[in-house]
Amino acid sequence: MAWNTNLRWRLPLTCLLLQVAMVVLFGVFVRYSPEADAHWIEGKEPGNRSSDLENEFYYRYPSFQDVHVMIFVGFGFLMTFLQRYGYSSVGFNFLLAAFGIQWALLMQGWFHSFHDGYILVGVENLINADFCVGSVCVAFGAILGKVSPIQLLIMTLFQVTLFSVNEFILLSLLNVKDAGGSMTIHTFGAYFGLTVTWVLYRPNLYQSKARQSAVYHSDLFAMIGTLFLWMYWPSFNSAVSNHGDAQHRAAINTYCSLAACVLTAVALSSALHKKGKLDMVHIQNATLAGGVAVGTAAEMMLMPYGSLIVGFICGIVSTLGFVYLTPFLESRLRIQDTCGIHNLHGMPGIIGGIVGAVTAACANSQVYGQEGLAHAFNLDGFKTEWSASLQGSFQAAGIFVSLAMALVGGLIVGGILKLPIWGQASDENCFEDAVYWEVPEEPKNAASHHEDSTLKAPEP
Amino acid sequence: MAWNTNLRWRLPLTCLLLQVAMVVLFGVFVRYSPEADAHWIEGKEPGNRSSDLENEFYYRYPSFQDVHVMIFVGFGFLMTFLQRYGYSSVGFNFLLAAFGIQWALLMQGWFHSFHDGYILVGVENLINADFCVGSVCVAFGAILGKVSPIQLLIMTLFQVTLFSVNEFILLSLLNVKDAGGSMTIHTFGAYFGLTVTWVLYRPNLYQSKARQSAVYHSDLFAMIGTLFLWMYWPSFNSAVSNHGDAQHRAAINTYCSLAACVLTAVALSSALHKKGKLDMVHIQNATLAGGVAVGTAAEMMLMPYGSLIVGFICGIVSTLGFVYLTPFLESRLRIQDTCGIHNLHGMPGIIGGIVGAVTAACANSQVYGQEGLAHAFNLDGFKTEWSASLQGSFQAAGIFVSLAMALVGGLIVGGILKLPIWGQASDENCFEDAVYWEVPEEPKNAASHHEDSTLKAPEP
Amino acid sequence: MAWNTNLRWRLPLTCLLLQVAMVVLFGVFVRYSPEADAHWIEGKEPGNRSSDLENEFYYRYPSFQDVHVMIFVGFGFLMTFLQRYGYSSVGFNFLLAAFGIQWALLMQGWFHSFHDGYILVGVENLINADFCVGSVCVAFGAILGKVSPIQLLIMTLFQVTLFSVNEFILLSLLNVKDAGGSMTIHTFGAYFGLTVTWVLYRPNLYQSKARQSAVYHSDLFAMIGTLFLWMYWPSFNSAVSNHGDAQHRAAINTYCSLAACVLTAVALSSALHKKGKLDMVHIQNATLAGGVAVGTAAEMMLMPYGSLIVGFICGIVSTLGFVYLTPFLESRLRIQDTCGIHNLHGMPGIIGGIVGAVTAACANSQVYGQEGLAHAFNLDGFKTEWSASLQGSFQAAGIFVSLAMALVGGLIVGGILKLPIWGQASDENCFEDAVYWEVPEEPKNAASHHEDSTLKAPEP
Repeated sequence: MAWNTNLRWRLPLTCLLLQVAMVVLFGVFVRYSPEADAHWIEGKEPGNRSSDLENEFYYRYPSFQDVHVMIFVGFGFLMTFLQRYGYSSVGFNFLLAAFGIQWALLMQGWFHSFHDGYILVGVENLINADFCVGSVCVAFGAILGKVSPIQLLIMTLFQVTLFSVNEFILLSLLNVKDAGGSMTIHTFGAYFGLTVTWVLYRPNLYQSKARQSAVYHSDLFAMIGTLFLWMYWPSFNSAVSNHGDAQHRAAINTYCSLAACVLTAVALSSALHKKGKLDMVHIQNATLAGGVAVGTAAEMMLMPYGSLIVGFICGIVSTLGFVYLTPFLESRLRIQDTCGIHNLHGMPGIIGGIVGAVTAACANSQVYGQEGLAHAFNLDGFKTEWSASLQGSFQAAGIFVSLAMALVGGLIVGGILKLPIWGQASDENCFEDAVYWEVPEEPKNAASHHEDSTLKAPEP
Repeated sequence: MAWNTNLRWRLPLTCLLLQVAMVVLFGVFVRYSPEADAHWIEGKEPGNRSSDLENEFYYRYPSFQDVHVMIFVGFGFLMTFLQRYGYSSVGFNFLLAAFGIQWALLMQGWFHSFHDGYILVGVENLINADFCVGSVCVAFGAILGKVSPIQLLIMTLFQVTLFSVNEFILLSLLNVKDAGGSMTIHTFGAYFGLTVTWVLYRPNLYQSKARQSAVYHSDLFAMIGTLFLWMYWPSFNSAVSNHGDAQHRAAINTYCSLAACVLTAVALSSALHKKGKLDMVHIQNATLAGGVAVGTAAEMMLMPYGSLIVGFICGIVSTLGFVYLTPFLESRLRIQDTCGIHNLHGMPGIIGGIVGAVTAACANSQVYGQEGLAHAFNLDGFKTEWSASLQGSFQAAGIFVSLAMALVGGLIVGGILKLPIWGQASDENCFEDAVYWEVPEEPKNAASHHEDSTLKAPEP
Repeated sequence: MAWNTNLRWRLPLTCLLLQVAMVVLFGVFVRYSPEADAHWIEGKEPGNRSSDLENEFYYRYPSFQDVHVMIFVGFGFLMTFLQRYGYSSVGFNFLLAAFGIQWALLMQGWFHSFHDGYILVGVENLINADFCVGSVCVAFGAILGKVSPIQLLIMTLFQVTLFSVNEFILLSLLNVKDAGGSMTIHTFGAYFGLTVTWVLYRPNLYQSKARQSAVYHSDLFAMIGTLFLWMYWPSFNSAVSNHGDAQHRAAINTYCSLAACVLTAVALSSALHKKGKLDMVHIQNATLAGGVAVGTAAEMMLMPYGSLIVGFICGIVSTLGFVYLTPFLESRLRIQDTCGIHNLHGMPGIIGGIVGAVTAACANSQVYGQEGLAHAFNLDGFKTEWSASLQGSFQAAGIFVSLAMALVGGLIVGGILKLPIWGQASDENCFEDAVYWEVPEEPKNAASHHEDSTLKAPEP
């Protein structure tokens, strides 16, 4: 089946149309939050210089930049492991994220920052927009190499919308705590992406198998992504937590969980290879599962050893998933999961939701202090009388809501993406940059033309 | 024409001479700012721990580190796209920036931080030194591959000097606002670099054309540079803004502009290719034009939609520039612009200056608040009576001053660099690391010697 | 000699055993510091929002993230310069650091953060754990390519232990100041590693010489490591300094020293090559020596020109070391130092200790202010009567203690690692990823299969 992959008019029109829509909607709806508005100075006590520091900017901006790096370099380079798909991995991730953050500012703004007809954006909105796009990057991992950039933009449009609805249900209706997004970002993103790739099943994908693996240097590029994700994950899980001890604690818990995860991922990777060798796929991915799985509970009093246990388990589960579950999903359930997001985001996301529910259900005023407990779970207003176990139940409900939204949403969006008009490649041309990119030819005699002393121009 | 490219004594002597000069000048002139001096503790209220946070360090240091990454990794790796010039791109950028920041601390210090015979340096000086060097990195992009490291050091010496004079004229004499440096950094840097490359015109550069393109992995290295520039640009434009809302707003505006820019750059790149394919050169460069173009106005009340519009336009202008203008400049005006800095820094820089002038001219106390307006444009002292349109006029004047300084300065410095004594390569040996670097030979049988189980040492 | 390099059971068991031990020890000993505990809110003044900022998190977290990047990306990628050892460089560094930070949290916690039977961890502990692991990464550089991951884990276990004892002696018994760790991290780490590699001497290592060099792209990957180390070193040296001016000053001094170091490293690299060409090894390593050598004195009133002088000298010493000393150490002293850590961490570390001792001995109340002097050197309690020269003497003693601990510790640990049971490779299989990693085969016809328009799947 030879589809037309020439995007000459379709891609430009899609991009321009979406961007014009963004300009118009921003013009109508988006203004600065009070802390980013020039009127801010009027609210300050005169002569109190330190009050400049109370601007939310100084609480959140360093974390924001770390999260920003995770979305663009982290996810982008993590997916460059394929031998001939580096341009697309980094480039399409760049494209979808650049569109997604704008649309997320609007969608999340309408739900959470809408005042007097305007969305008031500040640094926390930027972080949340990055988070939202994070879930699209997760889903992208499942369909990597098999879709056109137009499909990605359409998926982003819908997924950001669904994400925002789901996030609103969880955070505002169910009063769930999910600072690091185990449920809203990872569980939702992963199962959404898996459903989409199931709908888009390609029966003859084996024709592209030769390109569905790494070469030496592509694996090193992918490690850039892995490490920036791993290193900045403490910022990710703490970025929107309450000021003070909650941000502090979230960073510590994430640091611990991720460290434990590396050791068990390495252990399993070696144990499952017949000669005991390590597999780069596991090192690149399973080492991150610990960050996903403490997403919900990171800001709670999970305790450092609790974090280690979560990381310990997830390194094992994730590596086992890569070895046994991914092939099974592909051969039996027709779920072609290019990056193995089920192992890195799906299962660890659910584990994270459960850990969060259990940790919340076990919360008590001895561990948190009376005031600390109320502060950590917003037990004021109508929640004043909530018990810990009630909070735990709502947390658990959040997992199921996220799964349901992901599956239903994925079916619908997958159906839309299946239309043969979006410029997708045929099964034998998957995982190949040259379909959508001008790719340079390799120099013919790469090894011979830099001998040094007698430098000459190579034959033109 | 075969010049002598052996730098054995010239490069070491240049480096050592410059560095000894730096040591002497620092010894005579440079001391710590009060906030970095051990006496600082005496000025604090006793027992007031939070006053430690009032140290400028905590306001600026995270932004400083982001800017630092942009200068060294951002610009350095952005230029590694050439197939055989990666060592030089990263290495020479490293060298010139390391020298440039020292010289900039002195030059900018004399103009802006000189008290009682001493330059008092603090974190803001470090940021400004990085900014100044940023304009040298921009100019480097035009002459990349065609000059020796000695020429780069000489150019840095002069350009930093001229930059500081120009910056002094704009910021201190014309009272221009230019937090992100659309005029002082980008416009000045780009037209300075273009003038230099015009003077250094190489008629037979076609002999090196085979190396003036990318290979697959060099493009991925360049994307590291692109992304770190893109992600940290909000820090760049907000790093030296006023505390509080101005920093906050500058980050938001830059974030928005850059996001819009990606979509229009992708749109144009695809539309201008006969098969609708994307060109890595555009993705690596034109996606950044939005950051350049909100440099001046980022801290003003440009509004998020205003930022989107600026990014929208610049993504288009920049991509068009790469496709149509760069070849024209080379063939008709004899301006050989290796990295296309005219498209990324030149035109967007001028647009940024204009946007800043218009935004300043439209400022009013309704949008800014009475106090906010005075604060944003320093309307105190002799400026108390300034109108917005007067500020706008001075802003516009800043563009012309920057252009004039760049053109005149570029002519002079280009003339100096044209002397045949600096170790530059001949036209057929441009874009080649092996001229100045010890380059490893490729292993002869790269594909065969890692078969695995029966590991043997390759023949020595 | 053909050792068994199949780690199938040994590596998994080692990892799991160590990680289980960590979980148990963390369960017994580790809790949150008060500033990361949910009770923290109770200690705050009611209604005082700015007091959230007094949480140590906001003073240290941005620096922590920078240090974190240095350990994982900085050291990890710096070592990828070898042509066939990139997976191991990044991957084993990841593994040992992930284990090391956990063990360091415990060891350093018992010495410095032990209260009422619990180790109370906060962000400063995370930084110190990263620091401690930094010294293991340094030592790894000496034995890179010649040890198995099991040996690395064992070395980490012992080295972290010894590091913590040495650090306790220096900081708590000798009252030494060493904020950037010239002595505790670099001197100790380097001479420990050199002693270990001396014990592990491999007489037939020449059989692997063909792989003990770089290829073009591996050198570019290494530059990622170099630059992130170089850029974030100001954060490294200032991360645990006193709040306020000391952090501020440490960043400035490090910035200056590193800048100077680049110019002299380039000068010497060119001067020592017969054709004046630059050597990537020097650019990757010697440019960092300035950061090592201001480690101790960075937070003192070293003055910017003092920092330049330190950097100036170290760029020279380090490059000379690579050219003359490393070959001498290998041929005469049987010290095979893969990365040349003696030049980057050994000599500059000792220089740093000396610079610190001299700077401390010269401290006086005119330069620091009375209060500033007491604050900078903790001259309270029993130290109230300490003179500057006494402080200087203790600083100097710290160098010798660190050296002694490194040599004795290195001998013992080297002896343990020499046992032929840890899965190390034979001399002819050193510097080769395929020993411990599943390595992808290179595509057979890499140059031919992406011609573009007539895309076909390559032969399977």
